[in-house]
This record gives sequence, structure tokens and C-alpha cells, in this order.
Amino acid sequence: MVKTGNILRDLPARILTEEAFTTLVDRPGLRVECIVSTGQASPEGEWYDQDTDEWVLLVEGAARLRIEGESEDRALNEGDWVLLPRHCRHRVTWTRAGPPTVWLAVHFTPGGEK
Amino acid sequence: MVKTGNILRDLPARILTEEAFTTLVDRPGLRVECIVSTGQASPEGEWYDQDTDEWVLLVEGAARLRIEGESEDRALNEGDWVLLPRHCRHRVTWTRAGPPTVWLAVHFTPGGEK
Repeated sequence: MVKTGNILRDLPARILTEEAFTTLVDRPGLRVECIVSTGQASPEGEWYDQDTDEWVLLVEGAARLRIEGESEDRALNEGDWVLLPRHCRHRVTWTRAGPPTVWLAVHFTPGGEK
Repeated sequence: MVKTGNILRDLPARILTEEAFTTLVDRPGLRVECIVSTGQASPEGEWYDQDTDEWVLLVEGAARLRIEGESEDRALNEGDWVLLPRHCRHRVTWTRAGPPTVWLAVHFTPGGEK
């Protein structure tokens, strides 16, 4: 009944055409996922605008995040986390391609709806 | 409104007398916390027996985990995660003291109670 895994093993040795998403926990009101980026960024002019709050941790690698209304990207390095309230529009403007950039994202809603 | 932090910066350079717990997200039914261990283990014969499910990630360092009913410890290394259902009794039998061992724990209940 005890599930286990590793988010840093078997990372891609090459640049992937898309980010790789793995759902680790999926419950009402809560989703934990691992995202592996190899240089991907949000398309120009596209913003994430989510119905859930998101706590995101940069586990390995490096990235840049732009939050709507801010004048500069935020640089994210290993161990950095950001708590993004729902509908806080944001874009990932850059990710380190290799070794890959590994994110842990916790999406949640207080009421249990997802 | 965007909260940020870093769980790998300012780690203790010496062995602490106790584990250090930092709550990063605290909502109904969800608590995300960072735990820094410097050699601590569960006292002999003591088991964690929690009312919440726990998803735990070893971010840095190394540890050993014993789950009740299993005949051997599980070795945990960087990137390893374990999903412990509520009331799955477990003990941490060893943690690497230095550099410190850093855990990320997500405690959750489906109904939103905590």
C-alpha cells in the first residue's frame, strides 16, 4: 500500500520536444506533480491562469518566471519555491535544458474541489 | 501576494539538537512542510501514527525508513518519495547528519479537515 518513486532518476539525457509531466498524488482538491523541463518556456504572450493555488519548488536546474504586472523575471534556482495564488497569471520564460530542470508542483483548492 | 522562499539556503553548518520544521503552506486539509535533519532518528520503539496521509520527498541527503511489518529499513536517497497512508506506522531509523538531510512533506486529508 506504500507507493514509492524517485523524481531525479532516469532523467532524459537529451532535450525533449515537450515538458514531461508525472502525477504523483491525485486526490480531491490536491494534485502533486513532477515536471521535467529541457529548455521549454511558455509560448510568447501565453499566461498560465489557473483555478487552483499552486506551490511550486525548483528541485534541480534553473528557470525564470514572470508574474503579470512585474517588470522583471524572477530567477529560480535549486530550492527556490513560489506560492502562486489561483488566477495569478504567470509565464515560465526560460528553463535550463541540460541537465534537465525538475519542478515539484502542488496544486490545491481549499474546499476539496479540483 | 506571491510568497517565495528557499529550502536549501542557510542550512545549518553544524549538527542541531533537534530536527528543524518549517511550515510552507497551511490550509484546511493541507500542510506542506520542510524538515531539516542532522542525524536525528525516531526514538527506539516510537512510531509515527498520523491521522493524515503523507507524501514525503527526500530533497537532499540520505535516510532510512522503517515501515511497521516490514523486515528491513528502506534506504532513501535524493529524489526518492514515499506515499504513506494515514495510520501507516513508520519510523525514521537514520538520517545523514552533514551536509544536512532535507525533506519535503505534504500532509493531506481528502475531506479538507486537518
